[in-house]
Formats: sequence, C-alpha cells, structure tokens
Amino acid sequence: MGAMPIDPNGSVPGEKNTVRVEAFSDGVIAIAITLLVLELRVPHVEDGALPGELLRQLGELLPNFFAFLTSFVTIGIMWLNHHNLFKVIQQADHWFIVINGFLLLGISFVSFPTALFAEYVGHPDGNIAAVLYGGTFTAIAICYNLLFRYAVARRLMHPIVSGDLSKTVLRGYNRALLLYAVSALVGLVSPIGTYLICTALAIFFILPTRVSAQLDGAEGV
Amino acid sequence: MGAMPIDPNGSVPGEKNTVRVEAFSDGVIAIAITLLVLELRVPHVEDGALPGELLRQLGELLPNFFAFLTSFVTIGIMWLNHHNLFKVIQQADHWFIVINGFLLLGISFVSFPTALFAEYVGHPDGNIAAVLYGGTFTAIAICYNLLFRYAVARRLMHPIVSGDLSKTVLRGYNRALLLYAVSALVGLVSPIGTYLICTALAIFFILPTRVSAQLDGAEGV
Amino acid sequence: MGAMPIDPNGSVPGEKNTVRVEAFSDGVIAIAITLLVLELRVPHVEDGALPGELLRQLGELLPNFFAFLTSFVTIGIMWLNHHNLFKVIQQADHWFIVINGFLLLGISFVSFPTALFAEYVGHPDGNIAAVLYGGTFTAIAICYNLLFRYAVARRLMHPIVSGDLSKTVLRGYNRALLLYAVSALVGLVSPIGTYLICTALAIFFILPTRVSAQLDGAEGV
Amino acid sequence: MGAMPIDPNGSVPGEKNTVRVEAFSDGVIAIAITLLVLELRVPHVEDGALPGELLRQLGELLPNFFAFLTSFVTIGIMWLNHHNLFKVIQQADHWFIVINGFLLLGISFVSFPTALFAEYVGHPDGNIAAVLYGGTFTAIAICYNLLFRYAVARRLMHPIVSGDLSKTVLRGYNRALLLYAVSALVGLVSPIGTYLICTALAIFFILPTRVSAQLDGAEGV
Repeated sequence: MGAMPIDPNGSVPGEKNTVRVEAFSDGVIAIAITLLVLELRVPHVEDGALPGELLRQLGELLPNFFAFLTSFVTIGIMWLNHHNLFKVIQQADHWFIVINGFLLLGISFVSFPTALFAEYVGHPDGNIAAVLYGGTFTAIAICYNLLFRYAVARRLMHPIVSGDLSKTVLRGYNRALLLYAVSALVGLVSPIGTYLICTALAIFFILPTRVSAQLDGAEGV
Repeated sequence: MGAMPIDPNGSVPGEKNTVRVEAFSDGVIAIAITLLVLELRVPHVEDGALPGELLRQLGELLPNFFAFLTSFVTIGIMWLNHHNLFKVIQQADHWFIVINGFLLLGISFVSFPTALFAEYVGHPDGNIAAVLYGGTFTAIAICYNLLFRYAVARRLMHPIVSGDLSKTVLRGYNRALLLYAVSALVGLVSPIGTYLICTALAIFFILPTRVSAQLDGAEGV
Repeated sequence: MGAMPIDPNGSVPGEKNTVRVEAFSDGVIAIAITLLVLELRVPHVEDGALPGELLRQLGELLPNFFAFLTSFVTIGIMWLNHHNLFKVIQQADHWFIVINGFLLLGISFVSFPTALFAEYVGHPDGNIAAVLYGGTFTAIAICYNLLFRYAVARRLMHPIVSGDLSKTVLRGYNRALLLYAVSALVGLVSPIGTYLICTALAIFFILPTRVSAQLDGAEGV
Repeated sequence: MGAMPIDPNGSVPGEKNTVRVEAFSDGVIAIAITLLVLELRVPHVEDGALPGELLRQLGELLPNFFAFLTSFVTIGIMWLNHHNLFKVIQQADHWFIVINGFLLLGISFVSFPTALFAEYVGHPDGNIAAVLYGGTFTAIAICYNLLFRYAVARRLMHPIVSGDLSKTVLRGYNRALLLYAVSALVGLVSPIGTYLICTALAIFFILPTRVSAQLDGAEGV
C-alpha cells in the first residue's frame, strides 16, 4: 500500500532508529530457520514390510538431514552476521530498508532449494537442484555485499567502523560471495561438491575470525 | 475470552500505549511473509524421466515464483507502511485495535490467493483466482484506509501530522485502493493483467515517495 | 531441561517481571493465529473440467473460510484479553506460568479442530468435530478462568484491580466459559449450532464492554 | 556470510549484551512449539463409512495427541529453563552463542521425531522411532549441559550464582541428561517406555524444585 510517507527512521528521541527494522528482520529469520524442519517428512512404511524398513527409509532421508543441518547453520550465521551489522548501523534510510528486504526474501526462500537439493542430490537432475541451492546463497551474499557497501557509501555506520575495518569486512564479504558463486557453478558438474563447499563455509564461519578476536575486548562497540 | 475489561491502552507511564499492538502486528506480518515460501512445493520427477525434466518442471513453477515474489514484496511494503503509520499513532483505542485486527486477517490470508493464483493463472478458471488475488489486496487497502480515517477522526495521531499531510496521505491511500480494485476487476478478463498491476504497484511503492523525500530531513518525527 | 532453579520472576530492577513470559506468549499466539491459513488448501481442478469448476470448488471450501474467520477472530480476542490481563499482573510465579503454558497449549491447538470442523461440518460425523471445536474453546476458557482466579488468590495483580472489579471480570469469564461449554454440547445435535454460538461470541467480544467503556478514561491503568 | 567481525556482545552501554540472542532464541522456541500442531493431520473418512468412523480415526490419532502434548510441555519447560539460564548470564561470547545455536537446532528439530514416534509407536519398527525421540531430547540435554558448563568455566554468569548453586544446578542437568539417555535406550526394547519416561520427566519438571522454592523470596535475582 505504501502511501504513508512518514520516514520510518524519523524516530522517538533516544531510540536507535533501526530498532523495528531489526526486530522485523529477526522475526523473519527466526521463522525461516525454524520452518526448515517442515521439509523433513515422516517416511511411510507399507504394512508387512520387513523389520528395520523404517531405519532403511530414514537412511534414505540422510541427504535431507544433512541439507537441513547445513541450511540451519548457514541461516544461523546469517542471523549473527545481520545482528552484528545492525549493531554498527546508526540509521536506516529508504534504500537500506529495501535492500534489507531483498536479503530477507533470500533467507526466507532457503527452505525451498534445501528441500529440492535433498530430494534430487542423487538424481540425474541433481545438478539443477545444486545450482539453485548454491545460487540462493550467492544471491543472499550479494544482498549482504550491497547492504554493507550502501551503508558505507551513505555513512549510515557508527564512526567506530573505520575505513580500514570496512575494507577488511568487505574483503570477507567478497570472499564469501565468490565462494558461494563457485559452489553454485561446481553444482553443474558435482552436486555433492556444492554441498561440501557450502558446509565447509558454514563450519568456517562458525570459527571465530581473527578480526572478531581482535575486537573481542573492545568496549561499547 | 474477552471478558477482561481493562483498557489495553491504559498503560505504563512513559510507555507509548501502542507498543504491544505494534509488536503483535509485527509478529503476524513477519510470519505471514515467511509462510509464503511453504506454498512452493518441490516438484516430483518420475523415475526414468528424460534428463532436464526437473528444469522443465521448475519452469512450470515460474508462476509460483513470480507470485511468491510479488506477494513477498507487497507484504513487505505493507509492513513498512504499518510501521510508518504506527510511528505517528499516539494511542490506540478499542475500534482502532479491531480494525487493525482485520488488517492482519487480510495480510495473513495472502498466502492462500497467492498459491491459488499461481496454480490457475494459465487455466480457464484463472480469472476467478485473479479476482480473489486482487480482491484480497483490495480488502487490505480498505482496512488501511479505514484505519487511517479512524485515527484522524478520533485524533489518535501525533499533532505533527497536520491536516494537509493527512489529506496527502489519504489521497495516496485512495489511489492505492482504487488501483487494487481495478486489478481485481481486470482479472475478470485477464489474470495476467491482475498480476502486472499488482507487481507494478509493488515496484512503484518501493520507490521513495516525494512526500517521504520531503520529510526525510525532519527530526524527531 | 528444568533443573535451573533461578526464579523466572526474580528480575532486573525496574523491569516488570512478566515481560518475557508476555513476549513468549505473544509470539506463540501470533504464530498460532497466522498458521490457521495453512489449513486452507488450494483446490484441485481436473483437466477438462467445465468452466467455473474452480468457483464451485471454492464454494465447497466456504465452511473452511468461515471456520478460519471465526477462529482467527477468536484467537485475536484471546490475544487482546491475554494482553489486558497481563497489564494488571505485577508478578508471575511458578504456577501462574504453568497455567499460562496450558493456555498457550490450547491456543496453539486451535488450528486442528478448526480444520476438522470445516472438513466434517456437513458430514454424518460432524457432531464429533463440532464437540471438539467447542470443547477446545471451552478448555481455553477454563485456563483463563484458572489463571485469573489464581492471580487473585495469590495477589499477583496490581492493587488497581479492586475486589469488585475482579468479581465483575470473573462473572464475564464464567459466562464465556458456560457459553463455550454450551456450544460444545450443542454440537452433539447440531454442528452448525456450535459454529453459530462460537461466532456470536466472537462478535459479542469484539464489541467494547460496558466495564471497559467505564474504564476508558482511567489514567495509568 | 559471517564476515562481519564486530563482536555481537560488544553492546550499547547499559544494555545487557545478551538481549538479542535471547530474543532470537525466544522466537525460535515459540515457533518450534507452535509448529508441533502442524503434525496433527485431519483424518480422512471415506464416503459411506459407518457413523462414528471419525471418532474411531481420532482414536487412532491418540498417540499423536499424546506425543504432541509431551513435546509441547517439554519444549515449554526448555523455554522456561533457557529463560532462567539467560537471566544470570551477564555476557555471551562467540562459543556461547554457537552452543546456544545447536541447542536451538535441537529444539526446532523436535517436531520431526515427535511425528515419527506418534506414527510408529505401535509398529514393529517403533523402537527405531523411540530411540530417535529420546535421543533428540538427550542431544538437547547435552547442549544445555555444555552451555552451562561453558558459562561457568568462562565466568559469563552473574556473581549471584555461587559455586555451590552451580553445582546443584549442574547435578540437576546431569540427572536430566542421564534420564533422557535412559529413555532413548529403553526405546530399544519398549517404545512406550521411552514415552513414559519422557512424560514423567515433563511432569516432574513442571513441579517447582526445592532449589527454586528456596530462592523464591530472593530479591533482584
């Protein structure tokens, strides 16, 4: 509807004007991460099947469990990253909110390529699913990249984020973007390759970064 | 159920008395926007299908992806609009909360006409689905219109919202309402027409308005 | 799991100690109300069906739309009521939180009897579904009743809630409980009767009560 | 994504630096507990079935209702416990957030083993489902245990939590972990045994603990 012209960032004095954008984003990400489990469907065992058939069918769901796990961890990291980014954003403007919206679109979409990938990973068309899986993460990485660059360009950040720090962060973002793009391309020849790269990235991002370790003692950031 | 007579707007001193209505609305909208993805179902490829069959089936899901995209952006704009509106609401009374409730009903309903529209857009009965799709947005636009008019009439708004500004905003609301009604009617003859109008509106509303640009520098709004 | 003995109500000084219980309840209710739409399933029209078949099938879904509407409004009222009740609760203790938990259990369960009722309302076994539908609301009403009585008995409420006011509120609660119980019993002979009573109650509760009107001007409640 | 190195715990002065981790956790747990109901599927009665067939089929769903109930109460207790734990956490660091993430992974996964267990409890392969059901709770108990031990080891807790209290709490955690592990193992021979132990634990945890009773009067905890 969008006809209400009051700037969402004009705000209650003393309140950081990104509070509600942040809360809404947190809500969407929390829901997106929790909905992933809905794609795990209870297998159906025919009457008169051999004992242990359920175990065999759960075994066939292994790709689903693995895809669930990687997507859960990846969205979790996205949340943490989003959270960290917003800590240093002092004000959000119109386009910042719009770019953030596309970021949320990407994150809320993740459950579809996750389910698709799990279903088709061993199938002749697995490469199609893999490209979509890696491609979704690539698209999200592009949104993060844009969001950060835009915030730097429009000086939306807290001055504590120096030019040098920005460059370091951006290098990390670029690297992540590049690696997700590679994971999507690898899917053309090896769906498992896509999964391994995405999982490796998830594990890598769980490890504390050198930069974060450096900042660990910083007060009031 | 409904027998507790304490006014929800009577409030903790110093707290804006719309805080929890706002938080509840944010929750419902965040969930409604994230549930849209559940209507994207993983296609089923028969064993022994030709290679690339998955790609063909994903192609058949294109209307679903497009409908998902437009509904996501539209609900996102609704959230932003809701957020902006509540920024200038100083207190909510009983009927304000009731109208807001019907607004949330409309927003949480969106995923059904979205899925219906995507399923039937190329079908002889596509016009029925299109009318329901455009009609749902029309109903939501009516709720926004009512909510704003009610808030003006009952002086629930911050004095910063002058009579002139109210009229400008209301003109925008009326225009949106009219265009969504047109999109629903167009569906009688062209389902694609409904989609194009709704999408054009979504894109249009993403662009910052002149009024918001005007207000962009205003402090403490 | 459950071994952490720190009292959830011991709290940050100056913070009302029900804040997080309230936020969690809001979350559960917001999700429960939004999930209702998932029970509306897109109808399937066979290829080669007569034009207008979709409209006919949507017509068959009318019970679902009506059940969705009544349940949405009823949960909305429950939220408002919950919200109002917590405004006057000064502190929550262990059993208060437990009773509140069973209240949330009832509310999050609503989507199941709603879908069941919509599916079977015109079926010979419709009375079974109707009893479960009315019975669920009865169970929730019992939880509200217990929650309020417990809060009164344990003096958890703000002193502004006088003994007289408590009695008035409780009379309202008792009446609601009685009417929901009647709606469940009526289902034994007339499923439509159950629906009509529940819907009448929803409409009735939307109307502002005399007591709330009386309190409307009260400051700082 | 993960390249933004600003420490999530560096924080706005005066704000407890776990606020957003807590809010995100609350969101995920609220969603996970509410999604449980989606696994209750409306039964399908064939046309021409005998009257009362719906009742018979609802009877067959009894395991689902019981599993829903136990899982709901268990997740509710987990939330309460999580809430209590975070009350005494003064700051969260990287690994604390990571362990908390795995805790949330476990909680959001619960709906799958719940549905699986309900489906297969009377089936020859019921023991497989039972082990997964008890095993999921065991895994969550391990996460709680790790989270608490880590917080103690890294001195993340409020000084009010004395060494003695920590030991008492940890004994409780260990006992819970042991009992959930037993419930999983019991499933190898008796799926019903798994259910009974998990339900007994849920009921036990609802009762106020001696330690919490002791602390009930403590101010400012």
